Amino acid sequence: MPMLRSDAVRQIAIVIAFALLVLPTLAQAEDGYDLWLRYRPIETSAQRVYRAQVTEIVAPAAASPTLAAAQRELERGLSGLFAHSVPVVAQPTRTGALVFGTPASSPAIAALHLDLAAAGGEGYVIRSIAPRGRRTIVIAANSDIGALYGAFHLLRLIQTRASLLDLDIISAPRFALRTLDHWDNLDGTMERGYSGHSIFDWHRLPDWVDPRIIDYARANASIGINGAVLTNVAANATSLRRDYIEKAAAVASVLRPYGIRVYLTARFSAPIEIGGLDTADPLDPRVRAWWRAKADEIYSIIPDFGGFLVKANSEGQPGPQDYRGPTPAGAAMTGPSRNPRNYQRTHADGANMLAEALAPHGGLVMWRAFVYAAENPRDRAMQAFDDFAPLDGQFLANVIVQVKNGPIDFQPREPIHPLFGATPRTSMSMELQITKEYLGQATHLAYLAPMWREALGTDTRLRGENSTVARLLDGSLVRTPHTAIAAVANIGTDRNWSGSHFDQANWYAYGRLAWDHQIASEAIAEEWARMTFSNDEAFVRGVVAMMMGSREAVVDYMTPLGLTHLMATGHHYGPGPWVSDLDRPEWNPVYYHRADAGGIGFDRTATGSNAVSQYAPALASLYADIDTTPEDFLLWFHHAPWDHRMTSGRTLWDELVVRYTRGVSRVHAMHQTWQTLASHVDAERYAQIDAFLGIQEHEAQWWRDASIAYFQSISRRPLPEGYAPPEHTLEYYESLRFPYAPGAPGRTAAPFRN
Amino acid sequence: MPMLRSDAVRQIAIVIAFALLVLPTLAQAEDGYDLWLRYRPIETSAQRVYRAQVTEIVAPAAASPTLAAAQRELERGLSGLFAHSVPVVAQPTRTGALVFGTPASSPAIAALHLDLAAAGGEGYVIRSIAPRGRRTIVIAANSDIGALYGAFHLLRLIQTRASLLDLDIISAPRFALRTLDHWDNLDGTMERGYSGHSIFDWHRLPDWVDPRIIDYARANASIGINGAVLTNVAANATSLRRDYIEKAAAVASVLRPYGIRVYLTARFSAPIEIGGLDTADPLDPRVRAWWRAKADEIYSIIPDFGGFLVKANSEGQPGPQDYRGPTPAGAAMTGPSRNPRNYQRTHADGANMLAEALAPHGGLVMWRAFVYAAENPRDRAMQAFDDFAPLDGQFLANVIVQVKNGPIDFQPREPIHPLFGATPRTSMSMELQITKEYLGQATHLAYLAPMWREALGTDTRLRGENSTVARLLDGSLVRTPHTAIAAVANIGTDRNWSGSHFDQANWYAYGRLAWDHQIASEAIAEEWARMTFSNDEAFVRGVVAMMMGSREAVVDYMTPLGLTHLMATGHHYGPGPWVSDLDRPEWNPVYYHRADAGGIGFDRTATGSNAVSQYAPALASLYADIDTTPEDFLLWFHHAPWDHRMTSGRTLWDELVVRYTRGVSRVHAMHQTWQTLASHVDAERYAQIDAFLGIQEHEAQWWRDASIAYFQSISRRPLPEGYAPPEHTLEYYESLRFPYAPGAPGRTAAPFRN
Repeated sequence: MPMLRSDAVRQIAIVIAFALLVLPTLAQAEDGYDLWLRYRPIETSAQRVYRAQVTEIVAPAAASPTLAAAQRELERGLSGLFAHSVPVVAQPTRTGALVFGTPASSPAIAALHLDLAAAGGEGYVIRSIAPRGRRTIVIAANSDIGALYGAFHLLRLIQTRASLLDLDIISAPRFALRTLDHWDNLDGTMERGYSGHSIFDWHRLPDWVDPRIIDYARANASIGINGAVLTNVAANATSLRRDYIEKAAAVASVLRPYGIRVYLTARFSAPIEIGGLDTADPLDPRVRAWWRAKADEIYSIIPDFGGFLVKANSEGQPGPQDYRGPTPAGAAMTGPSRNPRNYQRTHADGANMLAEALAPHGGLVMWRAFVYAAENPRDRAMQAFDDFAPLDGQFLANVIVQVKNGPIDFQPREPIHPLFGATPRTSMSMELQITKEYLGQATHLAYLAPMWREALGTDTRLRGENSTVARLLDGSLVRTPHTAIAAVANIGTDRNWSGSHFDQANWYAYGRLAWDHQIASEAIAEEWARMTFSNDEAFVRGVVAMMMGSREAVVDYMTPLGLTHLMATGHHYGPGPWVSDLDRPEWNPVYYHRADAGGIGFDRTATGSNAVSQYAPALASLYADIDTTPEDFLLWFHHAPWDHRMTSGRTLWDELVVRYTRGVSRVHAMHQTWQTLASHVDAERYAQIDAFLGIQEHEAQWWRDASIAYFQSISRRPLPEGYAPPEHTLEYYESLRFPYAPGAPGRTAAPFRN
Repeated sequence: MPMLRSDAVRQIAIVIAFALLVLPTLAQAEDGYDLWLRYRPIETSAQRVYRAQVTEIVAPAAASPTLAAAQRELERGLSGLFAHSVPVVAQPTRTGALVFGTPASSPAIAALHLDLAAAGGEGYVIRSIAPRGRRTIVIAANSDIGALYGAFHLLRLIQTRASLLDLDIISAPRFALRTLDHWDNLDGTMERGYSGHSIFDWHRLPDWVDPRIIDYARANASIGINGAVLTNVAANATSLRRDYIEKAAAVASVLRPYGIRVYLTARFSAPIEIGGLDTADPLDPRVRAWWRAKADEIYSIIPDFGGFLVKANSEGQPGPQDYRGPTPAGAAMTGPSRNPRNYQRTHADGANMLAEALAPHGGLVMWRAFVYAAENPRDRAMQAFDDFAPLDGQFLANVIVQVKNGPIDFQPREPIHPLFGATPRTSMSMELQITKEYLGQATHLAYLAPMWREALGTDTRLRGENSTVARLLDGSLVRTPHTAIAAVANIGTDRNWSGSHFDQANWYAYGRLAWDHQIASEAIAEEWARMTFSNDEAFVRGVVAMMMGSREAVVDYMTPLGLTHLMATGHHYGPGPWVSDLDRPEWNPVYYHRADAGGIGFDRTATGSNAVSQYAPALASLYADIDTTPEDFLLWFHHAPWDHRMTSGRTLWDELVVRYTRGVSRVHAMHQTWQTLASHVDAERYAQIDAFLGIQEHEAQWWRDASIAYFQSISRRPLPEGYAPPEHTLEYYESLRFPYAPGAPGRTAAPFRN
């Protein structure tokens, strides 16, 4: 007995020592890789409650790869959160059983005869039931993927410490297509990427598929993303070469069980570049035959290929309107005058040609409406509408026109794009940008859900009250063959995926809003903070407050009052309101702010470009009048005098200075809040976020000072009482150069050899 | 009592459950990030032994940052390996104390009056002693860094399961400077890098320093590396801008405690590009003054700055011989004829100018001898000797001439560079390449220690028997102000640092050989395998065998019998023996193999370029005669007829085919061996290595088949009996294009915006 006891004691000692040894190791491992799927053991008090409510996992009889993934996730999640493993059984054996699957795959679920109609093809129900008095939680769906989505939902409830009592959840996505667009190049670089390399290792594919792709799929499935465009919209015909299709197929095979289809970008001139033809004219039978054969080839290798995303006749990309030959990387646009061959076809001609090739296989064409031309003197904000509005009704059923949320280009604040609601006979998709090209890139904290909700929630009144853009797109008000939403990813090989920990929240928020645009930004922020960091109430309150104010802060210190597109050239890092020397007029900040002695802003009313006329009547009249235009859009639609009286009672000039300054203070406040939360976060993530907030504070000051220095040189007005002058001279700010800021294409490469 | 017991049991259950939960987590975490500093708990049997031998860590009284790092490493290492924490005490309290430090920092060590003369400035002694009958292990050094190196040595003994009894170790480095050269660009790309992005995040420095840099410093210190050149030798003047010096200073502050000095590459034309001068003439007083001021500025920010590494008048880089203005990225070399200004200075003029600027601060100039000129019809292998041999004696004392191991460019096998031994009045450094630009890049397994030992061990007979290159460089035979060795790093942001797990061994082996070139390649491989994977004897035997044969396998399937430089253009990925269309003759494989109807090989004897005449007499006579030339160098020095009779009895043609084929079989055998070792490795690392060996098998076959198809088109001879013909036609192999293979500079970038 003494022997035994001492043995037992030694055993315990060893295990405890080991656990103690390992705990710091885990703490160290808080590098953000786990994202919001962070299944660390929860407080023992909560463990006691949840363990009693989930005692066993009832596996479906027929385990498809998708149901197997759901089971793996539940095992991994529950055993991690509960700090003990939850048994998997074939039949419910006790109270607290968790039953998941479909009526087809699970006799236990079939026996319940649940009404799953509302769940639709991808949704699910989660219910608390008590067959024969045994408390049971059931996750049921019509499809395997619905069951996987439901499994992630259940885990989220525990991760956010929600009650598992009397569950009666029905959830189904509002958009059928919820895609991530990767602006990733075949050489591993990422356009507008601020988080390392592309996660798609094209060179080693298909022989080597990084296991990281599985975690990428898990993260996307956990928020309902069901499509991934693997390649940059500034497309490369090589990605349609057979060997590259085989590489894409290897990625598709990893994503498939998680309900994610693979899409590729199609370079319009591919028939010439890799097809050996002398034209890419969409009406040329040889061109149409080439695309049909290419589509057949792709589907023979990737049977569930999603389709093509196309950037055509946009910023130098070839397209149906005119062909100017393979454009050298980064080359400036050349006009039709210098164009040897000219198809003179429409975007509909181009999109429909590809749609015809994909239709037999159920593939889709996502055709971007991000077009504007140097030759065109029209207000850049109006050109996409000019091109696409007249084409309504001409697109085939498997074409979706993909429109950026605003008429310019993912700025900190834009009004909605006038095409939304203007093409009721066309399937439309809203393209958002998760990677923060214009909102401080990876180092600035800017939570984007409020910006996206602002666009989705804009009421056009086109179909009466509450004709929001979201409802025009999601099929509630207008019937189109497809409903879709897309966003440009911020994902790379950085250990934390997104370059910064807070940028993970934007990936998360996009998925959640793509599933249900009715969820409040604040609710999403709270979910994310609880899953990613801590359920401590004080911490959650603090972090959610930081997030909710962050985007307005960026608007204040970069582009207040409807100003836009004031960033430096190329990399878009830092302020450049003075830039006026770029090839294309609409690439220059001065094109947008139009500041002069008289005032500032772009007149888009009838006395100006009349861009307001493209909007739905209710919005058009709102924006046409400087007195009814929301001050947040004032200088977007109006050229206002410096002394224009604002609702604050201040002059426009004074209000500008106040807003710029407020932006800096808001960042300072965020940083201070963060420093009060240190005790709730592991040291590693705390330190990086703290350092990044420090960078954001410096850079907000830089934006504020450089912008005021420049605009003051035009307004010639004093700063309002008590507002500090810029730290440096305008010349100083204009002299700064950052040739190696990340994310810009065509960065300097080293000479040939060493 | 029952209550208590059940409580105790629950406690135990929870701890055990947690440990069990955590174990798989750890197993998952076997992604290679820990490198050879992998302090996982060792077998309990071994734990029992070592725990008794190391019972406490005696901290030095005065803890410098370096001694603190040593203490942290010992605590981390021992507690990890022992699975329990080892107490740190101020004085030895029991048997098994581990005492470390210097006589100055540790009274306990001072009291021992050890003779530390042999340890020198960076070395250490490790001894088992028994003061007052108490078994004690002492790690003593004259310097804090010596103590840190000794601490890593002690941990290595345990990691490799060596005995800690009767320790009597004296270790000191044979080269004073042991540097890693990073060919990293300011935009984060890496030239010839196959492991992700640069670990130096220039954009976010100095505000954000990735903690990964600490682990980089630990890994380097563990193998004695004491210098890091942060920037590409294809240099960028921007890296000498004040803001970039401040970024480098932030890195230096992290490396400093680990005994690593920071160096930068100096672009020779910087005085023009960032200095506002109209010349970079090294004899121009304004240029000299600019460099002096720049050096003063650097040292005011980085007090222990190491110095400059310079690539001048080499592959388009500006230099003292002629200046042709900032060279556009990747631009081809332009000759003096098209050169507006021409300094006509020597490499000594250029190096000495920089040396003068650095000398007051104790800085060094590492001046590369990797030069050859398109205008020069001479055998490329001879040009560096032509330029530098006559300058012997003209370089200032703080100049080191850095010479690649062979006369061409890091090929799978080269004879030594003829400059070694030819400049006895000049400090010389051998530059090796860890990143495997020409040996299969990251996917092929090629352990480089045998290749490096082959070069270092080449006996020139210049100072009698055993006048090896290593002894000519390390000060044993020739006295020069500095002894040094350098290597191009293979380190990037990939989770496993080097792109592949086995490439970690090359980083490790470089450091170990830089410390002591006498250590056998096999011993280093064994150390690394034990520390990185497992101490299982069967596993170690198998892995060491794979590693030891791997480089010869690459030579066989890429460049057998002294063939060289047969790779494809630009990215150097895959075979291109047929390439003959590049701007510069010596960039074309046909320049090197010279295959024709009569035979194959480059005649470097008196009847040819007479490159043999540049070698030490003993080597010159050896290589001048085809019958005494080692067959491994046959075609390097001789143009031999296809029917030349080899020692095997076969004709040269048949022998070529046999060697190519043997290379493929060797890779197949390595792969088979690996598959027998699965049970000894975690699943994650096993799978990646298995996939990469699969890629190497395909690519070895590709090299073999493409090379035989091409050479057979010239030799017009049949394959020997029983040797399979190439799988495809020569046309097929010539048609293959890989525009996005990694590591090449100037890869396609995407257009301007999206």
